[in-house]
Amino acid sequence: MGPDPAVAAVRLAVRGVLADLPPGATVVAACSGGADSLALAAALAFEAPRAGRSAGGVTVDHGLQDGSGERADAVVRTMADLGLDPAGSIAVTVDGPGGPENAARDARYKALNRAAERLEAAAVLLGHTQDDQAETVLLGLARGSGARSLAGMPSEFRRQDVRYLRPLLGLNRATTRKACTAMGLEPWDDPHNVDPSYARVRVRHEALPALERTLGPGVAEALARTARMLRDDADALDALAARAYTDLEAPEDGYSAAVRLEGLGDLPRAVRTRVLRMAAVKAGSPPGTLAAVHVDAVDRLVTAWHGQRHVDLPGGLCAVRRHGKLLFGPV
Amino acid sequence: MGPDPAVAAVRLAVRGVLADLPPGATVVAACSGGADSLALAAALAFEAPRAGRSAGGVTVDHGLQDGSGERADAVVRTMADLGLDPAGSIAVTVDGPGGPENAARDARYKALNRAAERLEAAAVLLGHTQDDQAETVLLGLARGSGARSLAGMPSEFRRQDVRYLRPLLGLNRATTRKACTAMGLEPWDDPHNVDPSYARVRVRHEALPALERTLGPGVAEALARTARMLRDDADALDALAARAYTDLEAPEDGYSAAVRLEGLGDLPRAVRTRVLRMAAVKAGSPPGTLAAVHVDAVDRLVTAWHGQRHVDLPGGLCAVRRHGKLLFGPV
Repeated sequence: MGPDPAVAAVRLAVRGVLADLPPGATVVAACSGGADSLALAAALAFEAPRAGRSAGGVTVDHGLQDGSGERADAVVRTMADLGLDPAGSIAVTVDGPGGPENAARDARYKALNRAAERLEAAAVLLGHTQDDQAETVLLGLARGSGARSLAGMPSEFRRQDVRYLRPLLGLNRATTRKACTAMGLEPWDDPHNVDPSYARVRVRHEALPALERTLGPGVAEALARTARMLRDDADALDALAARAYTDLEAPEDGYSAAVRLEGLGDLPRAVRTRVLRMAAVKAGSPPGTLAAVHVDAVDRLVTAWHGQRHVDLPGGLCAVRRHGKLLFGPV
Repeated sequence: MGPDPAVAAVRLAVRGVLADLPPGATVVAACSGGADSLALAAALAFEAPRAGRSAGGVTVDHGLQDGSGERADAVVRTMADLGLDPAGSIAVTVDGPGGPENAARDARYKALNRAAERLEAAAVLLGHTQDDQAETVLLGLARGSGARSLAGMPSEFRRQDVRYLRPLLGLNRATTRKACTAMGLEPWDDPHNVDPSYARVRVRHEALPALERTLGPGVAEALARTARMLRDDADALDALAARAYTDLEAPEDGYSAAVRLEGLGDLPRAVRTRVLRMAAVKAGSPPGTLAAVHVDAVDRLVTAWHGQRHVDLPGGLCAVRRHGKLLFGPV
């Protein structure tokens, strides 16, 4: 008798990422006590010794709810019972800028980074699943800013010098929950996960089910697959644009960014608009405020030139066409 | 007193595309009698003579509902009253393959092509709006096959030699409806548009409203903007991949497609997977069945080679790595 199929699926996913880490490395599971990260922690505790890696676990106490300290202690005990060593918790203060969700995330990553550095961990594993990915893609849709905003979460990234991996992006939430049940683990259901004041919660409980009803089952999987493909697309086009920007850059006195017109018009629109966005950001336009409508107006200085005076850009900047160049600087 | 703002917006959009057509050209509006295409037809009748263009109108009688002939006659009378000349209807038989929606579309375009050729029209205008575009993007999401499936409808395309334009993609359905009301035109509400057996109808009445509720207003606009950007991305990457495929093509006896491995691994993943897809399709794999999972398996012959025997592909084909090439042929 092998393990339950859900348990096997989570373990297989973790085994895959362990194989890419150096023998003897320490790997840390970040565990909130929810079903996803609990299944992840259990799989890591099982797989790591078999793969010749060390496994630890860390939970972050955000201090946002009554009893969060006791909750963190319980998660630490569960992680220790699973065999994660060391298993510990870190209390953080959530008071950063950018709304409560951003502040909590920033505080959490700072704590995880500290833990990873103290343990000299080769990687920190995060429990995000295909369903989280689908929700992220839909949240990105609302921004309407192209491939990058639909590219979801990467399966791997670095924060300062710490490497983070998401081995469960190919599995759905039903699988992690079944895995917990099969292992007799009782996940904690964060009340934030049903609080409709969070956009993510509304997407999870309203938008995704509506899409499943109208488009058929498998929407979350399709969204996750789309995210991965669009991430590849965005990576390729951003790299091409960075190279084109370097080729076309032509500094001009009194302007904070400048690119030659010659060659710009021959680029495919997808690359050219990225080059123009890079120039505007380099000149000081805030990336979060600089929208497609601004970039399109700058693009018309290249492709539909009829003597426009200048294009206003966020950050008190403007773009003008002069001396065979596009020039970006203060108004 | 200028015209109603909604009427002005539709006219402005039509004026924009007329300016790109040759003076004296004949332009035909395709009009179902619904609010979108009725507003379009009225705007074309108003703008064309002022721009020195001729304007005609055509409606297609699909013969799918009782009284569709009388309905078509009424649309022709309305178009003639608006000043479109000639204004006519074409009856078609919907019996093609691929489901009722595809069959109706094919029959409709055949009829429009015939009308355009008979009138020597420089372009046929279609009344699709931003809302139609948003629905198309969501329908594409369910396919989960990347940028191209999210790229929505182009603002311009050719079918055989006939040029089709969609001037209203930047306007929403509320605007076309307001324009009709302001002009005293009574649009026809196609009962198909509320029949929930159509996926598009379910997307319109369930999925999009759920997204608006969860993500905030402006979702349709964001989806339409996303579509345009992803179309640019897909165009750029498809062109790069076509060039790379030509560079890497290396015919081999007994195989229907072959590409050199050297150089393939250096391509960005977004371009490489498109090259592999092109090779598989060239070898005879049906594009509609060839999925990301197949292309990924072929990609692993390049990037994660450990002596795999071969990769099975739809259409009774397989891919093998041999002689410094990837070879595609019958199993």
